[in-house]
Parts: sequence; C-alpha cells; structure tokens
Amino acid sequence: MKVKSIDHVAIAVRNLEDGVKIWKDMGFEVEYEVVEEQKVRIGIVHIGDERIEILEPLDDSSPISGFLEKRGEGIHHLAVRVEDLKDALRELEGKGYRLIDREPRTGAGGKKIAFVHPKSAKFLLELVEE
Amino acid sequence: MKVKSIDHVAIAVRNLEDGVKIWKDMGFEVEYEVVEEQKVRIGIVHIGDERIEILEPLDDSSPISGFLEKRGEGIHHLAVRVEDLKDALRELEGKGYRLIDREPRTGAGGKKIAFVHPKSAKFLLELVEE
Repeated sequence: MKVKSIDHVAIAVRNLEDGVKIWKDMGFEVEYEVVEEQKVRIGIVHIGDERIEILEPLDDSSPISGFLEKRGEGIHHLAVRVEDLKDALRELEGKGYRLIDREPRTGAGGKKIAFVHPKSAKFLLELVEE
Repeated sequence: MKVKSIDHVAIAVRNLEDGVKIWKDMGFEVEYEVVEEQKVRIGIVHIGDERIEILEPLDDSSPISGFLEKRGEGIHHLAVRVEDLKDALRELEGKGYRLIDREPRTGAGGKKIAFVHPKSAKFLLELVEE
C-alpha cells in the first residue's frame, strides 16, 4: 500500500463556534458543512495542502457525542491519503488489523474513505482515497 | 501571525513498538529519539512534508503518562508551523488565550516551540517556529 500524505486532522468539540475560534484568531477562514450521515456539523480550515476539521455533534446519536462523553474535547482522528483504498484495506486486514469499515464508503466531498479501529492502530485512523 | 502548515501530529502510546507497528505496516520507516526533558521516547515517521510522532513515556513523571491515565492511548497534540513564534504568542495572549509556554522554549531538533493550553484551544496545540 502507498500512503502519500496527511489528508486532515479532526477535532471534536461541544460547540462549533468555540472550536473554530482559535483558527479564526490565527488568521484562517472557516468553511461550514453538515454531514447528516455522521450527525456532525463541520468547520473546515485549509492549512498547506491539508485540512483541519472541527466537528460538533448534531445530536446524541452522533459518534462524536460518544467520544466527547468518554474523552472530552480534543483531537478525534487523523486521516491519511492512500493511492488505492480497497487494496490498503485488504492489506491491513491481512495483517490482522481490525477495520471499522471493511469496504470503502463515501465520505464528505464524495471521497472514498474507511476507518481503522483504534484498538488496532492505537488511535482513530481514517484512510482517504485521493 | 502567520501559520504556514501542519508540522506534526503526536500520538501517545503505552508501548512504542506497538505504537509504530501500524506505520511500519503501512510502509514507513521509523526513526527513534529520546527527549529526556519531556521524558519520552519518540518514533518519528516522515509523511509528505509533515511528521507523525509516536510518544511513549519514559516513566510516570512524563506528561504523556498523565495523558494516558486520563484519556488512554490516542492523538496527543497537533503542531503547526508559524513564521514568528514570539509574535504569535503575544498575539494569542492578547486575545485571551491561556499559554502553557509564555515564552518559546527549545524542542526536539533544536526548534523553538510553545504549547497553547487545551482549555483555550479545545485541543493541545503546539506552535513551532520554522
């Protein structure tokens, strides 16, 4: 498998306006998006060739709500760009990694994405096909 | 202040070999370093123009030990590159941000670094002067 670069870093917050404040104060513009499927409202900051995504849960059924309850506000996941997502998933599965998504699914912006379980990777890892 | 790019993402783990495994399995080489001042052993992965740092505490006095106890393994902090660190710290302080390091200190590789308190930024933010 070929991992090319960081795609984005996601930060879980209780209140999106509070979460984007530091980025605005550091001079960034913030774009907003709602991803209904994940029950999150997102603030997106472009930094270099990467993004910071600040995530606020839309309601208690959001996976971000569970994270906030268990761990509090902080960095939620790291996403890296891979050349071939299906191939990467098969390779990691073959090496014994536990996958949250065994097959690619469609994420924000229509990209193919999949998550690797933090028990396996030691943190929540997202793979994004470019 | 001018923030240019992500510098690195740091992941806290109990055991460094377990923590670097996924990166090795994704095809990366890992460099190792000990930072006595922070009481950590670090695995460094170069990805694009950024780095992933996997941090294992050397003993219970390490700040990483406290994080692991409170939150468990996972992403510890995000570092961004700034043009002028002193200027960035003065600007953030002026805007009411709580700083862990009010003045630049020397981090790994001899770079000037400073941390912003997570209560202020909603996550642990490190500023690195390039």
